Amino acid sequence: MITRTDAEQLDQRDPLANYRQQFALPEQTIYLDGNSLGALPKRVKQRVSETVNQQWGNDLIGSWNTHQWVNLPQIVGEKIAPVIGAAKKQVICCDSISVNLFKLLSVAIQLNGSERRPYILSSHDNFPTDLYIAQGLQQQIGSTTCRFKDVAEEQLYDAINDEVAVVMVTEVNFRSGKRLDIKALTEKAHQHGALIIVDLAHSAGVMPIELDTWNVDFAVGCTYKYLNAGPGAPAFIYVNKRWHNKAQQPIAGWFGHKSPFDFDPTYAPDSGIKQYLAGTPAIISMAAVDSALDLFADLDLQHVRTKSIQLTTLFHQLIEQHELTEQLTLLSPTDASQRGSQLSYQHPQAYGLCQALIKRGVIADFRAPSYIRFGFAPLYNRHTDVYDAVNTLCEVLDNGEHLAIEWQTRQSVT
Amino acid sequence: MITRTDAEQLDQRDPLANYRQQFALPEQTIYLDGNSLGALPKRVKQRVSETVNQQWGNDLIGSWNTHQWVNLPQIVGEKIAPVIGAAKKQVICCDSISVNLFKLLSVAIQLNGSERRPYILSSHDNFPTDLYIAQGLQQQIGSTTCRFKDVAEEQLYDAINDEVAVVMVTEVNFRSGKRLDIKALTEKAHQHGALIIVDLAHSAGVMPIELDTWNVDFAVGCTYKYLNAGPGAPAFIYVNKRWHNKAQQPIAGWFGHKSPFDFDPTYAPDSGIKQYLAGTPAIISMAAVDSALDLFADLDLQHVRTKSIQLTTLFHQLIEQHELTEQLTLLSPTDASQRGSQLSYQHPQAYGLCQALIKRGVIADFRAPSYIRFGFAPLYNRHTDVYDAVNTLCEVLDNGEHLAIEWQTRQSVT
Repeated sequence: MITRTDAEQLDQRDPLANYRQQFALPEQTIYLDGNSLGALPKRVKQRVSETVNQQWGNDLIGSWNTHQWVNLPQIVGEKIAPVIGAAKKQVICCDSISVNLFKLLSVAIQLNGSERRPYILSSHDNFPTDLYIAQGLQQQIGSTTCRFKDVAEEQLYDAINDEVAVVMVTEVNFRSGKRLDIKALTEKAHQHGALIIVDLAHSAGVMPIELDTWNVDFAVGCTYKYLNAGPGAPAFIYVNKRWHNKAQQPIAGWFGHKSPFDFDPTYAPDSGIKQYLAGTPAIISMAAVDSALDLFADLDLQHVRTKSIQLTTLFHQLIEQHELTEQLTLLSPTDASQRGSQLSYQHPQAYGLCQALIKRGVIADFRAPSYIRFGFAPLYNRHTDVYDAVNTLCEVLDNGEHLAIEWQTRQSVT
Repeated sequence: MITRTDAEQLDQRDPLANYRQQFALPEQTIYLDGNSLGALPKRVKQRVSETVNQQWGNDLIGSWNTHQWVNLPQIVGEKIAPVIGAAKKQVICCDSISVNLFKLLSVAIQLNGSERRPYILSSHDNFPTDLYIAQGLQQQIGSTTCRFKDVAEEQLYDAINDEVAVVMVTEVNFRSGKRLDIKALTEKAHQHGALIIVDLAHSAGVMPIELDTWNVDFAVGCTYKYLNAGPGAPAFIYVNKRWHNKAQQPIAGWFGHKSPFDFDPTYAPDSGIKQYLAGTPAIISMAAVDSALDLFADLDLQHVRTKSIQLTTLFHQLIEQHELTEQLTLLSPTDASQRGSQLSYQHPQAYGLCQALIKRGVIADFRAPSYIRFGFAPLYNRHTDVYDAVNTLCEVLDNGEHLAIEWQTRQSVT
């Protein structure tokens, strides 16, 4: 029988306990949606205000140099690099995951696509924007097909063959929270002469990642989830050094030119990671990323992973203790090592349940048609939050609050 | 003989005089670089702080709906529409000019490219990123060539012929400030069966633009110059209604899907302007755009243009009055109706001159190898600013301050 005192004791022994005070979290709220939008680090408030009021307002155009705006994509990239196991000069911050995947898929096809290798291989349960980007590219260049419709995530490994130019995979599934073995997938891809692009949206910042060691070719990732950089914050891109200067990404904007301020009419790409930049970076949003990443400077991601596993494990143990497993079907792997930092459950009234929890100050999220996701951010979620959240969940279900809400919602829609 | 009193009287009669107090401008500075980075509107401070502290910090994930984050690209687009002479549902805010040009050039080639129409036509003095994007696309799709090397801006009109799929042109040249006749270029393009894409970076917000009336096919533009939306703020895209649903832009991210929150693995583009979105928008930067645009709600752009012409005309008259025209060669058209809201001069020590002016609090900018640009933002630049700036310029030249600085700079580089 797990008690609240047990949870309190886990919090007292938590080596990450001090991180919570670095975040501006609302009172009376248990925020279990950091897998969708990370909470606001207090330092970001100050940094954004300084960027707008002093740098833009007062120092104006000169800030491109004096405040290093022009180098912000690289500066931020170098802060992300250790978080994802990358040596220097391979990571840069820019654009969105969608735009960055377009660049990388184009480069991968240039490098490895051919009549005998006509496929981008993915799975139908990958995050939709990744699949959409591959479909958009397929339509543009004609010669490549994105195979995903007949491949489920668990079949991906076996589907890698000599006809695949590039494997496109997300480490942690957005819906199920299932974590794939990127090292094994990379090995298999390389055995068959394929390249691999990994989407780290649901893993960067919440577990150790070893891109260089795993020998991954390319990666993209998101800074607004576990890296806490703000809504729609610029994404990042990783290109393994062996692919620098071997192909040209197609969105050849001036920030990717080897010397943009020469204003030469002919494009000549930078020979390194800077080539992956396109247009002028969104400085205010990127300053927030830069500041948010300082929280990771002295952080041991193994500690983060350990606490993440504790939180998800505790949550599900409490679900079992409250005998809720018949109503809530766990979609995520039961083996904690096989999942990311979220738990997804199927429930026939998942929408109503999610709304009822939000009314009670427990923020989770709903994914159509019948999933409720709980995300656990080890930097600010406590074991007692987990305990209290499951208690609230239990009360909501006991009182039928989720049913009332669903009924109201339906009524308002019809 | 023009006196400071004349300039003061012009300021007193200025119907836009009250706009200046809406901006947070530094003391003791005359900012003539709004054509590069617009000044900070005071309201933007408040809006960014609210977006970060309350919306993100307190309301967290729910803000996507409650604070309309999810609709921000369209909301901002509809505010830009009247500024560029576009009816509703044709403009959206997203990404950078570079990324947006990539989308539009791809669509234009899909619609109109063929073996008999193999060219994107531009000019070698167009802004480099526009040319780079066309070159990047050319390399990716193979079948199209960007013709620009043998075409100067003034030859563009005559170079339009039946082999051109799409004309890519910037209304106001970034270097010379020369303004092209977009209506005439559009007519000529259409006579020859070509499409036209217009870059409004240096014109949006500083002069009336009539995209619908001129019958332009596509446009992109920048919000961080005369629209004052902050460094690297998201750009905009205009697609004339007749081209909606006729082609698919290639960067097919989830925000361009007709129903992104269904999470369907198959891409199905939105039938309207929303298709031109790619990934998740950078909300903090875009909130700044949204707020900055409120300054344009009740603004008559004809007043802005009239004042813009007065400012550039006064500046050059004062240059003449001080007998500086032998040292400073005007690169911009002498006929004010033929130019945008900037004046560019050639000077052998342009770099030193620019730095010496900045030291004295007059902010202009330098473009290699020997140009100095003065940008005039009618919403916050006064006639007295122009008077004082030319006085300072005269003093700098008289004292040889620009020579001293150039020497120091050279020394520090070697």
